[in-house]
Amino acid sequence: MAVDTTFGSDNHSGVHPRVLEAISEANSGPAVAYGLDDFTATAAEKFRGHFGKEADVYFVFNGTGANVVSISTLARSFQAVICSEHAHINADECGAPESATGCKLLTVHTTDGKLGCADIARHLRGRLDQHRVQPALVSITQASELGTVYSAAEVREIAAFCRKNGLFLHMDGARLCNAAASLGLGLGEISGELGVDILSFGGTKNGLLLGEAVVCFRPELSKDTLFIRKQKMQLASKMRFIAAQLTALLSDDLWLQNAAHANRMAKLLEEKVKSIPEVKIVQPVQANAVFASLPRRAIDKLLKKYFFYIWDEDKNEVRWMCSWNTTEKQIDDFAAAVAESCKVKT
Amino acid sequence: MAVDTTFGSDNHSGVHPRVLEAISEANSGPAVAYGLDDFTATAAEKFRGHFGKEADVYFVFNGTGANVVSISTLARSFQAVICSEHAHINADECGAPESATGCKLLTVHTTDGKLGCADIARHLRGRLDQHRVQPALVSITQASELGTVYSAAEVREIAAFCRKNGLFLHMDGARLCNAAASLGLGLGEISGELGVDILSFGGTKNGLLLGEAVVCFRPELSKDTLFIRKQKMQLASKMRFIAAQLTALLSDDLWLQNAAHANRMAKLLEEKVKSIPEVKIVQPVQANAVFASLPRRAIDKLLKKYFFYIWDEDKNEVRWMCSWNTTEKQIDDFAAAVAESCKVKT
Amino acid sequence: MAVDTTFGSDNHSGVHPRVLEAISEANSGPAVAYGLDDFTATAAEKFRGHFGKEADVYFVFNGTGANVVSISTLARSFQAVICSEHAHINADECGAPESATGCKLLTVHTTDGKLGCADIARHLRGRLDQHRVQPALVSITQASELGTVYSAAEVREIAAFCRKNGLFLHMDGARLCNAAASLGLGLGEISGELGVDILSFGGTKNGLLLGEAVVCFRPELSKDTLFIRKQKMQLASKMRFIAAQLTALLSDDLWLQNAAHANRMAKLLEEKVKSIPEVKIVQPVQANAVFASLPRRAIDKLLKKYFFYIWDEDKNEVRWMCSWNTTEKQIDDFAAAVAESCKVKT
Amino acid sequence: MAVDTTFGSDNHSGVHPRVLEAISEANSGPAVAYGLDDFTATAAEKFRGHFGKEADVYFVFNGTGANVVSISTLARSFQAVICSEHAHINADECGAPESATGCKLLTVHTTDGKLGCADIARHLRGRLDQHRVQPALVSITQASELGTVYSAAEVREIAAFCRKNGLFLHMDGARLCNAAASLGLGLGEISGELGVDILSFGGTKNGLLLGEAVVCFRPELSKDTLFIRKQKMQLASKMRFIAAQLTALLSDDLWLQNAAHANRMAKLLEEKVKSIPEVKIVQPVQANAVFASLPRRAIDKLLKKYFFYIWDEDKNEVRWMCSWNTTEKQIDDFAAAVAESCKVKT
Repeated sequence: MAVDTTFGSDNHSGVHPRVLEAISEANSGPAVAYGLDDFTATAAEKFRGHFGKEADVYFVFNGTGANVVSISTLARSFQAVICSEHAHINADECGAPESATGCKLLTVHTTDGKLGCADIARHLRGRLDQHRVQPALVSITQASELGTVYSAAEVREIAAFCRKNGLFLHMDGARLCNAAASLGLGLGEISGELGVDILSFGGTKNGLLLGEAVVCFRPELSKDTLFIRKQKMQLASKMRFIAAQLTALLSDDLWLQNAAHANRMAKLLEEKVKSIPEVKIVQPVQANAVFASLPRRAIDKLLKKYFFYIWDEDKNEVRWMCSWNTTEKQIDDFAAAVAESCKVKT
Repeated sequence: MAVDTTFGSDNHSGVHPRVLEAISEANSGPAVAYGLDDFTATAAEKFRGHFGKEADVYFVFNGTGANVVSISTLARSFQAVICSEHAHINADECGAPESATGCKLLTVHTTDGKLGCADIARHLRGRLDQHRVQPALVSITQASELGTVYSAAEVREIAAFCRKNGLFLHMDGARLCNAAASLGLGLGEISGELGVDILSFGGTKNGLLLGEAVVCFRPELSKDTLFIRKQKMQLASKMRFIAAQLTALLSDDLWLQNAAHANRMAKLLEEKVKSIPEVKIVQPVQANAVFASLPRRAIDKLLKKYFFYIWDEDKNEVRWMCSWNTTEKQIDDFAAAVAESCKVKT
Repeated sequence: MAVDTTFGSDNHSGVHPRVLEAISEANSGPAVAYGLDDFTATAAEKFRGHFGKEADVYFVFNGTGANVVSISTLARSFQAVICSEHAHINADECGAPESATGCKLLTVHTTDGKLGCADIARHLRGRLDQHRVQPALVSITQASELGTVYSAAEVREIAAFCRKNGLFLHMDGARLCNAAASLGLGLGEISGELGVDILSFGGTKNGLLLGEAVVCFRPELSKDTLFIRKQKMQLASKMRFIAAQLTALLSDDLWLQNAAHANRMAKLLEEKVKSIPEVKIVQPVQANAVFASLPRRAIDKLLKKYFFYIWDEDKNEVRWMCSWNTTEKQIDDFAAAVAESCKVKT
Repeated sequence: MAVDTTFGSDNHSGVHPRVLEAISEANSGPAVAYGLDDFTATAAEKFRGHFGKEADVYFVFNGTGANVVSISTLARSFQAVICSEHAHINADECGAPESATGCKLLTVHTTDGKLGCADIARHLRGRLDQHRVQPALVSITQASELGTVYSAAEVREIAAFCRKNGLFLHMDGARLCNAAASLGLGLGEISGELGVDILSFGGTKNGLLLGEAVVCFRPELSKDTLFIRKQKMQLASKMRFIAAQLTALLSDDLWLQNAAHANRMAKLLEEKVKSIPEVKIVQPVQANAVFASLPRRAIDKLLKKYFFYIWDEDKNEVRWMCSWNTTEKQIDDFAAAVAESCKVKT
């Protein structure tokens, strides 16, 4: 399926030129495989620059892999992960977490994709009951799957609740850069420094060809992650080419530049469509997604020209995703098309 | 660990220029994610050109992933895979096959890395016994982990045996191109056409940045592979960049050129070292690896300057691996270093 | 913890004398292990008498085992089971279904423990989407975990919906006998004859020492169940002693006599407490459980003398379970104690 | 299949009268389910009497369950279990260990079913290599599957080796009582006191209806075993009936009386057949099994009247298993039949 302009996903965008350049540069001479090369060492050092000296970093292929390696590092099969019903691990990974870790996911109904401490607390009642899975881990997504962003205070509160209740805190940061850009804070400032124990750091959606990382902030917990990564099929042989991309992303604020741009485009789109009477913005636009409802006939008309997902068929809610390379012109054109489509009567 | 010249693995080599170019070319404009893009369609078509019109193709990240997706497509957890003790799935995947599919591996002792029908037959005795895992699948590696190559007749015989005994045949083709180059046959001619049911096709070791494929020759068997690939964490979002590499590899005989070169370099190395009295070639050099034994003190001396693996500590056997970009000069220098190292007395 | 009278669970009751006698009788001379004995053949024949000639029967240790063997027979790890949030498989098996089959459970919120077709339909939207687990199986519990019973028409409707939508139907019949007694129908009439594909048949709660069965109504689906049972650790060596118990239970209407009695005791308890102003019956009493709410101080007082479970702490709901050997006297005494406890003021 | 006399398995024997009596006695009044009853407490106390005050005990259904719960307590999926190729966990559990724990079994070729330290050492070479499963556990079977018995010194040596090498030691004691009887030592003296970390204690083969136990000698290791037992489908609801059997077995030396008798019968059988020229005793008779080779025509003739297993088709080796209730008369008759069968010429 060819698409000229897409608001389908930040995955639809290509590779940032500086990232592609980094791949080319890494392609000089031989390098030991499986992460024992200099590029990987450099990238890990870059991560420690952002996430703190203690950060233990494992590069992996994709987000599902990062999440599974993270969960498997911190939980055993009789344990459970508390997460939002909208969490990627629950809704979009074809059961990989359950299948690969054995853990059950205990889900929480949310309207904005964000967990609260009371939600978590409700799942703690079966503790010590041998018939119940034992919650070991809370997983929050930052920015969330609904385009919202946890404030630093919110994450800090959850982390404190977790620590008090003997739970680990995992952050699915497939769009961590977007959240950081949104909050005006650093990557470490919104993860490890707030009490997150382990992080799935996303690169692919923010301009890489492919590449994510598991970042463990308490190295005493990740002693086995090396083996877990391999067993979960996430160990790249020519690791240098993932590492080099991540180094480029974390250098010279490229991560921020890309993420802030995507966020800005989403905000611009919101601005342009929110005054259309038929369009209702249904989630706060805090990262790079606009969730909106509009008449079904308008959606159908738009889908003939643009690629995007209907998020909730019953409510006619759609998701419009912006990316590091979405242009203002594309936003202008698309907003105009939205307005136009809403005018159509059956 | 920096290496100037390495005979450690064909994974130590970088990306072939035409493959890198293909990545750049694919980086133009947006593309739908998860394999619904034109690059993926083109690559699948390329595969069908080599492997036959019926071939059902799934691109994945790495070889372990390809093997797990293949096994999971054809076997359930109470079933078993018969393979050589040297098989990558048995020795080098940190238990991913057992952990991710639940299947047991029934191993066969081999001296040359190749299975025979009698080996397989011995594992069929527990059939219908509820206490025994039920063999469902035979897995052979072509070229084998010991650098040997099954002849077409050998594969045909195994395939016939499998069909007669209700077993599927999987081929781990991480180095299928090297085997095809060695046999002077096409890729399909040494796999599907001989009766292989499912293939792990390797690209990474033959000049890609990263990229493998599961090729199923009987599409009625792979109806669920789409979901299995996702659940086994092998679905790339920006799939086009894996697809484009594979298209380049399978175009204009690049696969053959790369593999034949690597094989030639191994043969050249064998030629140059076999006359050294202290060196013994311990496996037929049929693909891109040289397995040799030499005095321990010689090995230790060589390892100070070159990177390669000691394969068997007890026997002082080493593996020297050649690659698509190994040069004659490197072979000359290395062979001279081998000769030199053997002269040293304690 | 010693209990004189318990309404905690039908598991708290012992073994029916005729069942114990059957065990003794089976203890004469040797018998081949693992189900190849005459007692097992006789019991299987008994099952076919109740469930139809096609029924394929596998005896197992416990209900969780029966459910896992059933699910594993009909679903693979990328598939999913649709069930009530109250389902035993979801709430009370410490994640055994997910861990042992890899399948995800897609849960439905219910107030009475019973699924409807609309509930099921909502989970079918992700079909063919590779990111979603693929629903393969619907699991209903008869009688339900909330003491309610599906009518024959309700099961028939669900079965028709399943067949139409390519789903298998599993019935968790840990208390199937209670449901049959409640409906005045035979065991087969409320399961296989209504379109159930596979059944977990419960014996333990209805007077056995220990013993359950997986009954598959479509033998073409259970070709591998023999191996699955063993791998899921549910194969008894001295099978005859489970078989003999089940034969006794299914002979001379013992199953019905036990279940009908337990149901009657529950009904009697309901009659006696429903007029107490502080007590509210919160679920229809259709099998052998009474779900009621009453003041917390009354609950606490009762718990000093009787064993039962608080079902919902927030709502002060309790579960009072009756058994095949609960006596009218016990009901009388307990109802009086309930009335007494409600009089207490703080 | 009906059998009058069987040397097929100690599983073919029934329940010892005192065990059956204990079941009846336990069947008085209600008891809390899932192990919170007095019978379970009493049985656990009995175990601590034999195995030491620190012993943490979990009752389970069968031997495969005991082994899986033991392994899962001490190893994670990227780790491995080193065991004999003849180990029940490797050969007779339909892949339950791999499937239920994810762990790989690293097997050792043995002629007598017993592991040695050198065998174990050979599997330790891949440590710290991320491509290899990491050995965490050694599993030895006492008495072994070949009817041999480790001496106390042998177990002590293995335990010391394990401790030194950071490995846990599991003992599959499905026939621990036979081994203890053979060695003239107590149950704890041949397990925990020698350095075994976790034990699968077998009751079924020694006169129970059904019932085994996981005994952990280092309670700091078994904090999660409660949940593991439930998730691995090994938690009996009416636990008192397993507990009462085990209490009977461990009281008044019933375990010893049963096991010593079975051993004596095996020794008697050996005595009576070893002088037959065509019969060769192929393993030392140290517990309750006789492994012998004899002409195929003799085997075939015997099998018409007696039930036993051909252990090795190629070598015409058979296993004759004695039980707690095998009689001298049965041994006499069988030995005569063996002699008779050997006289037959084709």
